[in-house]
Amino acid sequence: MNAPLVAHDALRRFIEEAFVSAGLPAADAAQVAALMAEADLQGSDGHGVIRLPQYMKRLRAGGINKHPDIRVVQERAAMAVVDGDNGMGHLVVTRAVDIAIEKARSAGVAWVSTRYSNHAGPASLYARRPLQHDMLGLYFAVGNANHLPPWGGMEMLLSTNPISAGVPAGEEPPVVLDMATTVAAYGKVKALAKRGEQMPPGWMIDRNGQPLLDPQRAAEGFLVPIGGHKGYGLALIVGLLAGTLGGAAMGREVIDFNADHVSVTNTGQAILVIDLAAFGDPAQFKAAVDTLVRDIRTSERLPGVERIWLPGEQSHEKRQRHAREGIALMPVLLDELNTLAVDLGIAPLRIGTGA
Amino acid sequence: MNAPLVAHDALRRFIEEAFVSAGLPAADAAQVAALMAEADLQGSDGHGVIRLPQYMKRLRAGGINKHPDIRVVQERAAMAVVDGDNGMGHLVVTRAVDIAIEKARSAGVAWVSTRYSNHAGPASLYARRPLQHDMLGLYFAVGNANHLPPWGGMEMLLSTNPISAGVPAGEEPPVVLDMATTVAAYGKVKALAKRGEQMPPGWMIDRNGQPLLDPQRAAEGFLVPIGGHKGYGLALIVGLLAGTLGGAAMGREVIDFNADHVSVTNTGQAILVIDLAAFGDPAQFKAAVDTLVRDIRTSERLPGVERIWLPGEQSHEKRQRHAREGIALMPVLLDELNTLAVDLGIAPLRIGTGA
Repeated sequence: MNAPLVAHDALRRFIEEAFVSAGLPAADAAQVAALMAEADLQGSDGHGVIRLPQYMKRLRAGGINKHPDIRVVQERAAMAVVDGDNGMGHLVVTRAVDIAIEKARSAGVAWVSTRYSNHAGPASLYARRPLQHDMLGLYFAVGNANHLPPWGGMEMLLSTNPISAGVPAGEEPPVVLDMATTVAAYGKVKALAKRGEQMPPGWMIDRNGQPLLDPQRAAEGFLVPIGGHKGYGLALIVGLLAGTLGGAAMGREVIDFNADHVSVTNTGQAILVIDLAAFGDPAQFKAAVDTLVRDIRTSERLPGVERIWLPGEQSHEKRQRHAREGIALMPVLLDELNTLAVDLGIAPLRIGTGA
Repeated sequence: MNAPLVAHDALRRFIEEAFVSAGLPAADAAQVAALMAEADLQGSDGHGVIRLPQYMKRLRAGGINKHPDIRVVQERAAMAVVDGDNGMGHLVVTRAVDIAIEKARSAGVAWVSTRYSNHAGPASLYARRPLQHDMLGLYFAVGNANHLPPWGGMEMLLSTNPISAGVPAGEEPPVVLDMATTVAAYGKVKALAKRGEQMPPGWMIDRNGQPLLDPQRAAEGFLVPIGGHKGYGLALIVGLLAGTLGGAAMGREVIDFNADHVSVTNTGQAILVIDLAAFGDPAQFKAAVDTLVRDIRTSERLPGVERIWLPGEQSHEKRQRHAREGIALMPVLLDELNTLAVDLGIAPLRIGTGA
């Protein structure tokens, strides 16, 4: 059986109903569902509907607050700290980004940190949000499980703390970077384990510092940071910016939310929003980005390379293709979602992309 | 002959006299000299006095403006664009950081971009500058020569665009990251070439995408970004933030200032300053950083690893040791500086660290 296809809107509605039935307020359920379905739409399938069963476990176990009082607890002209009151991360971060957009409109630039937030899906969702306002977004997050030791170490004190940036272009798609500070994200290791395949050298090392290739043995090893000590440094700085600065968890305080569905994670994220208009004519900036994008795309390629991609370009193409053709779900995930649907007493996920 | 030692203050004074004799105003010469000598003090020896002959060439050739009108050309509560009028980069960036510090004091966070700046030495000098105000610095720069193609490409459209961060600690030294977005900076390749040694695989590739190991053949190949496509993405985003956003050069506009001493480089840098006091009690933040630093430093090590370092810790130790014991200069560099001294009609660099 091929991977079943599901329409973006059917997926969104399914997720929304699941959250409503789990007790989330309707508006909150709709907002989280829109972001999760958007993750699948853009091909960030490790952060979309695949996370629904896990979120449901946390909601049921009381590990997420269904009626959070998300509020600003520190504020100046160009910054705020948002306390998420342990609500769904998608709600907390969206609020943070929207505050940053408003503040950047007057101050030119604004930074908003979250505390007592939760896992919020792919970083690029939030770095992209300012784009429609001709603003640039830079997003940092503390990951929800530590898989990375400091360089030379064995204790996993750091997460794959991602960096994401969304940069407006003119006629070209925006430049959108979304990267873990490790060579491979942990989700990719889990995916290879499911498929029974080996990892390439460089993804993980074992407790002797030797390459670990068998993803079934992932628990015996550690992820490797990009550029060795550099990626370790980046992961640490991202954690300080997204976690420590806003009063959120970092280092030994980070909860493994895959294993623990109850403890408050105190997840931290941070968004920097830059209003292009403060720096000059946004049209001029966007034209310069277009030129750079085209210079890169059409530049000379190494032998055997078919195409030079810009960051975010593959997601952009997936977004368009998935909107047209539907989103492919793994059969095993579909089964899991339909079991969940029975459990919640909601309609199963509607397969197919026809009318 | 061992590397001759020179006292930090003698080095600073030598550089200052060189710039005065080249026609820089006394205050400007003193400021640039202090920053260049600080680079050597902290062990950033690829960016300290070794650059003096090159700066002199540019000053003589008219490629740098000795009497720049460094001024703010765009401004809002939390941002500014500083036009460096093609002055020495050290002067332009210092001005930018000081404006950001002032603005962050009221707005909480501030971003200042430069345009028509020049090479300014090691990034960490500027990311560290806010530390004394209990502020955090995040610095981005466009490198002054393109050595990096896009991932899969052969045209060097990008530089090793560095990222630097300075994070205040309490009793511990600050956490200071300063990294190129390539596996090795180009200066390290040049250093191996001088010593007649080979590069490890992973630093550079040739035009067939194969590892290039001979640094004498560096011109036939390209630097490799950290994490492959990730480092390419980072270098691009850093360039957009530090260059394009502020109206500075990026991509094909970047001048190779090693080869061209005349053309205006229009170098761009950007500094983000975050005032800890806006987010809560700075003492609490710094205590959390201390805890994290100690957790990392004392965590379990891989077999054969003697010590786990924090970013910036080695520079911190060098700064203290060099202040005490002097700074070692390569004999070939010392010869070059003494030739320069004769040329400029100033006293030679005083060797030794005694009174």
